[in-house]
Amino acid sequence: MNLASYEDVLQAASRLRTVAHTTPVLSSRWLNEQLGAQVFFKCENLQRIGAFKFRGGYNALAALSPEQRQRGVVAFSSGNHAQAVALAAQLLDVRAVIVMPRSAPAIKKAATKAYGATIIEYDRQTESRELIAQQWVEKEGLTLIPPFADPQVIAGQGTAAKELFDEIGGLDELYVPLGGGGLLSGTLLSAQALSPACQVYGVEPIAGNDAQQSLQQGRIVHIDPPQSIADGALTQALAPITFELIQRYAAGILTVTDDELIRTLAFFIERMKTVVEPTGCLGAAALWTRGKQIQGKRIGVIISGGNMDIATLAQLLTTR
Amino acid sequence: MNLASYEDVLQAASRLRTVAHTTPVLSSRWLNEQLGAQVFFKCENLQRIGAFKFRGGYNALAALSPEQRQRGVVAFSSGNHAQAVALAAQLLDVRAVIVMPRSAPAIKKAATKAYGATIIEYDRQTESRELIAQQWVEKEGLTLIPPFADPQVIAGQGTAAKELFDEIGGLDELYVPLGGGGLLSGTLLSAQALSPACQVYGVEPIAGNDAQQSLQQGRIVHIDPPQSIADGALTQALAPITFELIQRYAAGILTVTDDELIRTLAFFIERMKTVVEPTGCLGAAALWTRGKQIQGKRIGVIISGGNMDIATLAQLLTTR
Repeated sequence: MNLASYEDVLQAASRLRTVAHTTPVLSSRWLNEQLGAQVFFKCENLQRIGAFKFRGGYNALAALSPEQRQRGVVAFSSGNHAQAVALAAQLLDVRAVIVMPRSAPAIKKAATKAYGATIIEYDRQTESRELIAQQWVEKEGLTLIPPFADPQVIAGQGTAAKELFDEIGGLDELYVPLGGGGLLSGTLLSAQALSPACQVYGVEPIAGNDAQQSLQQGRIVHIDPPQSIADGALTQALAPITFELIQRYAAGILTVTDDELIRTLAFFIERMKTVVEPTGCLGAAALWTRGKQIQGKRIGVIISGGNMDIATLAQLLTTR
Repeated sequence: MNLASYEDVLQAASRLRTVAHTTPVLSSRWLNEQLGAQVFFKCENLQRIGAFKFRGGYNALAALSPEQRQRGVVAFSSGNHAQAVALAAQLLDVRAVIVMPRSAPAIKKAATKAYGATIIEYDRQTESRELIAQQWVEKEGLTLIPPFADPQVIAGQGTAAKELFDEIGGLDELYVPLGGGGLLSGTLLSAQALSPACQVYGVEPIAGNDAQQSLQQGRIVHIDPPQSIADGALTQALAPITFELIQRYAAGILTVTDDELIRTLAFFIERMKTVVEPTGCLGAAALWTRGKQIQGKRIGVIISGGNMDIATLAQLLTTR
């Protein structure tokens, strides 16, 4: 298996230099006093399209051969990956087909369409998005851009942690939202190279702890579709490539509840004045569950995204 | 009357250099395309205590004589000015007494107390906060720090616009939230010095347009307590010093509705991932009311603050 390496992250960083934002690193004096630790938030909610996914999507497209670029790409996603691939395709002048559920929010379809992508709708109950994408690959020669199971996607996601270490130096621990493991895998590559003593943890919703189970059992565990407000971390299983990197380099997997995610979301609004989607809160939510284990330490947290419609946000804040 | 000057702003900037944040200037590609203009948001919601008020409060305290500092200060406010004076007093090791309504949110009282200030509560219906503050001035020799009618407070507020011009250069127009006029007055001093051709507009809630009426009539107009969600801009009249500066240098006063403020607040959350309190949205809300008048122009907007409790935010987003 072709695992990505830190060399790939460096190449991705060079491709992304003029197109991605170097997102800010924020801190809160209040939080640091509360926790007795020094916490650094890497704000990928302020990345283009509002999530780190732009890094991996763009890097994957930029790494294509001229022939592949000419034929175009296809991706399936109802979330941030769709917009990431659509924007990357627009910037690189590549045809993009995005397979989205008919039930996806109109605002997301419109945003994806605005980047010039073709949207193919499917019925979540009766159709398989993988099969539909596969048909486009076979009939039109498009290249599939997977959301996480791809070395170039992983390398692109790793550039966020690279920027974090470049800006603030080494860390004792680093917490990373974990769904399919693309962001965590890329982060592990950067941490190994730039802060090898740093303990890197993936954080997943407790209801969808497939990665935690997989590490415990030493094999990829598939779970039933989990229920959590962290809608970007509802993957049912890691991919072989992300499982391998996580098993090799991660310090462990932490889990948090939906209540902890909502409290974290409120903390970001009230104290940091920044909007973080529930999935983006995963890493930060783990801070409060660690107790004395983080005292006196330098802790990094990746905020993975901030895309949330107003109705969803209002509902989350009301049910608190 | 001792009007503040740009020299005072420069002195304030030097006092604030190591204690205030140089807040970021953000832009939105989407917004710029929508408006056909180039818009720069100066994000004072990311200032210490979550609002520009820290600049003026700190500068006023730092400008006190050693004797005045030794005796202490008093301020009355239920909002951001209270926390600004309390934090400034803590940093400068000055005693602070803050007069707050008994009905103020517990979270605001707690935050002010956490900075080491003494809180004196009063009954909004039956007592006068001005009289209570005056008693502390007379009995204990404290110095009153007014929320806006003070040259040093105005000079401090002017440092936000100074940073904006220093970072991005000259502007065609600049929109500034307007309550008592401290932020607008200080902004006018910086604009006169750094971008003299820039048209600077104050923006107030249409229900509380005392400044607009005052400019039209050439005298300070007092209005009844206005009703608006912009709770930091409910002042009933300008002060002589702010009226004089605004009359002399402002291009005009714009007004916006509460509905426009809520739409702007939602724009900041959905598109910019940043939390802005309703008062802080005043300047930005005017963007959409200007239509073709801003096309092709470079427009600055000051976001004045981001303090809002979660319940209030949830309610604003639900009633949209």
